[in-house]
Amino acid sequence: MTKEQIKSISIIGLGLIGTSLARAWQAAFEAEGRKLFISGYDNNFANKDKKEILNYGLNRFESDFQYLCAVDLVVLAAPVQENIKTLRKIKRFLKPKTLVVDASSTKQAIMDVAKELDVRFVGMHPIAGSELRGYQNSNPDLFRGKPVAICADEKLLKQAKVKDFQALMELIGAEPFVVDAASHDKIFAKISHLPQLLSTAIVNYCAEDLDKAGTGLQDMARLSGSAWLVWQDIFATNQTEIADVLAAFSQKLQSLSNDIRAGNYEAIEQEFQSGNENYQKLQKRTQQ
Amino acid sequence: MTKEQIKSISIIGLGLIGTSLARAWQAAFEAEGRKLFISGYDNNFANKDKKEILNYGLNRFESDFQYLCAVDLVVLAAPVQENIKTLRKIKRFLKPKTLVVDASSTKQAIMDVAKELDVRFVGMHPIAGSELRGYQNSNPDLFRGKPVAICADEKLLKQAKVKDFQALMELIGAEPFVVDAASHDKIFAKISHLPQLLSTAIVNYCAEDLDKAGTGLQDMARLSGSAWLVWQDIFATNQTEIADVLAAFSQKLQSLSNDIRAGNYEAIEQEFQSGNENYQKLQKRTQQ
Repeated sequence: MTKEQIKSISIIGLGLIGTSLARAWQAAFEAEGRKLFISGYDNNFANKDKKEILNYGLNRFESDFQYLCAVDLVVLAAPVQENIKTLRKIKRFLKPKTLVVDASSTKQAIMDVAKELDVRFVGMHPIAGSELRGYQNSNPDLFRGKPVAICADEKLLKQAKVKDFQALMELIGAEPFVVDAASHDKIFAKISHLPQLLSTAIVNYCAEDLDKAGTGLQDMARLSGSAWLVWQDIFATNQTEIADVLAAFSQKLQSLSNDIRAGNYEAIEQEFQSGNENYQKLQKRTQQ
Repeated sequence: MTKEQIKSISIIGLGLIGTSLARAWQAAFEAEGRKLFISGYDNNFANKDKKEILNYGLNRFESDFQYLCAVDLVVLAAPVQENIKTLRKIKRFLKPKTLVVDASSTKQAIMDVAKELDVRFVGMHPIAGSELRGYQNSNPDLFRGKPVAICADEKLLKQAKVKDFQALMELIGAEPFVVDAASHDKIFAKISHLPQLLSTAIVNYCAEDLDKAGTGLQDMARLSGSAWLVWQDIFATNQTEIADVLAAFSQKLQSLSNDIRAGNYEAIEQEFQSGNENYQKLQKRTQQ
């Protein structure tokens, strides 16, 4: 850590990701005997829940954005379009040195707005989602061993507070990698938004016969439990990439269908061999 | 159980399914203090493995098919095309009363051959596969709570030995349901063969970015570890149904792609709501 350490954080959006971050950071600081103050904001909290959330890593539940001027780091942890709205709302309370990061699943749209508003902003995407939601499902180990995308220009990435933020993510076991926003959205249309759509589509396509399903379909179906509330924002902010990826994958399936119909088993065998190899790679990575 | 109890079984094919059946039946009979004799056949076994396999629920490793005349039940537990070849080979050793069942993933092709050979045959498909293979991965609880398809004509299903066989499957916790072979192959093209192809296709489509994958893609990818040896038979014996299902699902994805590109979020939200409901149904079933 540098001299300009991050000691006070505000998290806006207290769902699975926001509260898991709070719990993970508090636990890591406590283990090192360091002090950290985290305040949390969430418009959707009823009064009775405001007390309970204080057991989830927060030092204070807050509703007045003017206190944001006092913190080192602001984390936007709601769905992306809500994060964009919040960013516009809080801009006037931020000091020029305040670092703002988000935890949304798409990066180009929010980074465009941050640039327009001239906010000191780092786009982040922790690859640690779940079909489960809400602070009750939060977990301080959610980020351990998980990749986390970091989007920012090179100049910013050299600044002390940004380095401190990356160190904060490493402190809780996450594995940051730097990527530009456009590439991020292209890649995640493939490795995240496509699996979600496949899961939803296949469970609906097989609706009549779910009582006969084995573990294969069951694993495939897990993501179909995901909330539209989160995904509507992802589709709205990564529309073209997702449409392109779905169309290309649809073509791939049509081509496999043609091969099977024609009895062209060499092509299918090749697809299986590659599948086996890629599965091994994926397993090696997750078992590290 | 009826008077005509099944007390001797031969299992031809000692992979995951065959050895799991042997272990499950032995454990169930032992628990009830009943006697059972299981012999196993497998051409692919080296001499050194023939000893080890005797720890996996078998009373004897056998290679001479003439002993099949002495057993109540023969189970074909290799991939479907090998089962078909075996059925033709063993026909002349079977007594007319011997019941033969298979455990293959497609049913129409093998049942056509059984009819042609005039063998007393029940088609079975335990929905208990895995991407893992081999007797070393066998598990006596593999069938507990799992559906198992039973294909046979009504007349046969009323016979004592066939009822005994269904009871044998219930004894190890499986949940038999009766379905005709054509419907079986249509249904499983959707709920089993489609998920397999999606898993293989997506892991290949995302090959370059697997290092950034989250748990969503990881769950989706599990089936891509499956062996071509098993699947080549499934594709060869359910060719048209699988080609049709893949083409139809490809169309569904193309249509979702069009909706996303056009910003038609009502249609996508509807798809998500149905997905959520179907996911709940699936979870309820598997948690029973």
